[in-house]
Amino acid sequence: MIQKTVERYRAHLEKLRAYHHATGLMTYDMSTVMPKGAGAIVGDTFGVLSEAVYDMLTSPETEAMQREILAHRGEVDPAIVRTAELAMEERARIACIPKAEYVQYTVDQTTADQVWHEAKIKSDFPMFLPHLEKLVAAKKRFANYYQPGAPVYDTLLDEYEKGLNTETLDAFFKTVRERLVPVIAKIQSRPDVSFLHRHYPVAEQRIFSDYLMDVLGLDKNHCAIGETEHPFTTSFTKYDVRITTHYHEDAVEASMYSVIHEGGHATYERNIGDDIARLPIGKGVSMSVHEGQSRFFENIIGRSEPFIEAIFPKMQEIFKKQLSDVTAHEFYTAVNKAEPSLIRTEADELTYALHVMVRYELEKQLFNGDLEPKDLPAAWNRMYQEYLGVDVPDDRRGVLQDSHWATGLFGYFPSYALGSAYGAQLIKRIERDLDVWTLVRKGDLKPIVAWLTEHIYRFGCMKEPGRLMEEAFGAPFDPTYYTNYLTRKYSELYNLD
Amino acid sequence: MIQKTVERYRAHLEKLRAYHHATGLMTYDMSTVMPKGAGAIVGDTFGVLSEAVYDMLTSPETEAMQREILAHRGEVDPAIVRTAELAMEERARIACIPKAEYVQYTVDQTTADQVWHEAKIKSDFPMFLPHLEKLVAAKKRFANYYQPGAPVYDTLLDEYEKGLNTETLDAFFKTVRERLVPVIAKIQSRPDVSFLHRHYPVAEQRIFSDYLMDVLGLDKNHCAIGETEHPFTTSFTKYDVRITTHYHEDAVEASMYSVIHEGGHATYERNIGDDIARLPIGKGVSMSVHEGQSRFFENIIGRSEPFIEAIFPKMQEIFKKQLSDVTAHEFYTAVNKAEPSLIRTEADELTYALHVMVRYELEKQLFNGDLEPKDLPAAWNRMYQEYLGVDVPDDRRGVLQDSHWATGLFGYFPSYALGSAYGAQLIKRIERDLDVWTLVRKGDLKPIVAWLTEHIYRFGCMKEPGRLMEEAFGAPFDPTYYTNYLTRKYSELYNLD
Repeated sequence: MIQKTVERYRAHLEKLRAYHHATGLMTYDMSTVMPKGAGAIVGDTFGVLSEAVYDMLTSPETEAMQREILAHRGEVDPAIVRTAELAMEERARIACIPKAEYVQYTVDQTTADQVWHEAKIKSDFPMFLPHLEKLVAAKKRFANYYQPGAPVYDTLLDEYEKGLNTETLDAFFKTVRERLVPVIAKIQSRPDVSFLHRHYPVAEQRIFSDYLMDVLGLDKNHCAIGETEHPFTTSFTKYDVRITTHYHEDAVEASMYSVIHEGGHATYERNIGDDIARLPIGKGVSMSVHEGQSRFFENIIGRSEPFIEAIFPKMQEIFKKQLSDVTAHEFYTAVNKAEPSLIRTEADELTYALHVMVRYELEKQLFNGDLEPKDLPAAWNRMYQEYLGVDVPDDRRGVLQDSHWATGLFGYFPSYALGSAYGAQLIKRIERDLDVWTLVRKGDLKPIVAWLTEHIYRFGCMKEPGRLMEEAFGAPFDPTYYTNYLTRKYSELYNLD
Repeated sequence: MIQKTVERYRAHLEKLRAYHHATGLMTYDMSTVMPKGAGAIVGDTFGVLSEAVYDMLTSPETEAMQREILAHRGEVDPAIVRTAELAMEERARIACIPKAEYVQYTVDQTTADQVWHEAKIKSDFPMFLPHLEKLVAAKKRFANYYQPGAPVYDTLLDEYEKGLNTETLDAFFKTVRERLVPVIAKIQSRPDVSFLHRHYPVAEQRIFSDYLMDVLGLDKNHCAIGETEHPFTTSFTKYDVRITTHYHEDAVEASMYSVIHEGGHATYERNIGDDIARLPIGKGVSMSVHEGQSRFFENIIGRSEPFIEAIFPKMQEIFKKQLSDVTAHEFYTAVNKAEPSLIRTEADELTYALHVMVRYELEKQLFNGDLEPKDLPAAWNRMYQEYLGVDVPDDRRGVLQDSHWATGLFGYFPSYALGSAYGAQLIKRIERDLDVWTLVRKGDLKPIVAWLTEHIYRFGCMKEPGRLMEEAFGAPFDPTYYTNYLTRKYSELYNLD
């Protein structure tokens, strides 16, 4: 009896997967190959497909199947039960939105993203503003449909990380600010980084990217690499993962660390359990856990001295002319230069969380307070001055730098800081099981990826993110691992006392 | 009353466009970016989406709308009437196929195409054979569902070019064979082509491709160029057209003429009327007319001496080292070297139709006669010996060379020869209105594209292909234009009498 329903539900899920595959591919194509003039057409196609998705997610038949499965949870494959559980939550979030508004939102999102790309190049915030306003207004309406009267920003935060709210984040950022600002203040002299800015031809950097993917263990048969303005990772199932990077010929570390960062996301997706790979739960569980992985590989592994020692011979082989007079240790200190700066994605580990804090404070005000979208540039520039002590020369390097708001990702940014903090606690836990740094120094990341697969990756969305991480840590989350890690690393690097 | 139906029908067509956009993009992605290991997943996604398309095309509601529109044709926009007419024809072709078979076929097609790519590289026909057998069997079944008892191959030919049949083609190829084989036989000495095979780096060839797209007037804002094993053109509407090419560093003319060929397809699509651009009729009308355009630009324009004179200074600028000691005239004679050879896509204009004839004869036997798929390689090799006098050394350069059969395109090949013949009659007609060769010698193709747009492109599928071409010619189709054109061109090139 219930098995018939499960069968029908599996067919429904497979159909849903296909539609998500199609829309996912369109999003990917839009940022990679699509000629820019095709924007209107692709927006309309999105409208049609997302209407079909809305119908599938919210139909009474779907709801009935899910309720039946949850009522018989003891008799059903736990992966299907978990899928139905999460789908009921997603349904509640979506079904309260009038269909026309939902469809319009997906079209507006596509347009906003396209306009943002152009606005960023032109450093033209007013061009982007009306689109941003539409998205902010829609997100406010949607949050109120779902949890009327609740603080809007908490509703948004909860969407990316279940249970997360401003209270937790205020406390988290307070710890970060109080412990790290004094460290930043102590740093006076800075290492020579001029060799990072020699001429690194794209063709050589492409070879280096392929090598980094090999080091991360990413199988090219299932993971492609492309080039876009803003690097990202997308996954249409673990069997088809795509990362992108952006090459700057005068900054070798920019693409290097974007490949390792996106490669970290890809590593997570590629190691989801095969048993759940085609289900909606067959993906990374939350943005924080995802960013935790990407920033773990980028920073904790990728900016460690053992890792640089492991890859530096190959780097010198690829970049013969540029790096023959540089040592691994010099390279290590250069990629760990700490200095308040303008661009989040290029920020060093130490000041990074402050970039996120600015976005967090702005989003909080935008959704819970009085800040209007039109006032964002001024508020942005003021906070960069206040927290990081830097002057923002234009919106391209200011409020327009990130793609997130252009695709409606409000409440996402805190994931980056939280994810960084997860990584610091995680490495301490892994060090108990593995001789991590000996492995890294040999360039052998396999056992580390296997450990993460065993404790995190294979589960996909089977567990709530909070529980997943606590079980991986073997202890509650504690942000002082993060502040201690950074304090120790930078005290050593800069001989602070 | 009828206007309500038209409105509903337009919404249906827009939905259909979106699904075709999605599946079209998947096909494109599969040949360009997709990591090879993702094949199974994309096949399943195709299955789901093509089932939805099947439902839309064949539903009783769709049929009722179409019948109503055709019954009120006097009151309805002619573009919508034409769309409904063609949809009823397509419906008849599809609705007779059991849905499960239709969906399975789309999945099998996707798989066969993937296997073919690998089989070609490995020159492994047995690897490809079971997939080819499936497609041939399905095409036979489908043709019999649609026109039981009719010769299967005629049913297939009619699908790509309405009204075309083996009787017409037998006569066409007879003329071609009788008139051209003696010309081929007369050619004894051949020009020096060694400079075509110097080292032409991909990076320089990419710049040259961009230049050729400019010469053709292809706007990069709506036409992208990519790289694939086998060049092709795809269009998701005139606003998003994609061409691909393949660079051989030791054969500059290979990519050059594939860009001009695919650019010809793209020029056709890019100049469809805006009024019909989003409708199913907003595309090239038939394969022959399409190949007519691509081969018109590739050969009649692209391999003419005035065209080479127009682009050669730029070529010498891009390929400084490779072409400084070569004259435009030498280049012209080299790219028109006539010699029986193995590969259709690299064949010269004169022997080209014989390559097509081999495929035509094999397809005819495969569907109307006794030839089994397993016997194709032997039959292929025998005919290449008989018609072209060449020995086929392996299946990679033999029966596996083209992608068409791997995607179920049986009955398509004759379009290439017919299209070539259309071009020869077309140029004579255009010469009456424009000073064609003076324009070409200046590299100014705009007036020629404008003429073709006025007489052919803008109509999309509004007219039957036969009528469209007759009206463009201002006379019935006559294949002796083609044989005369080739006889004249090669007699001059080789000083034949």
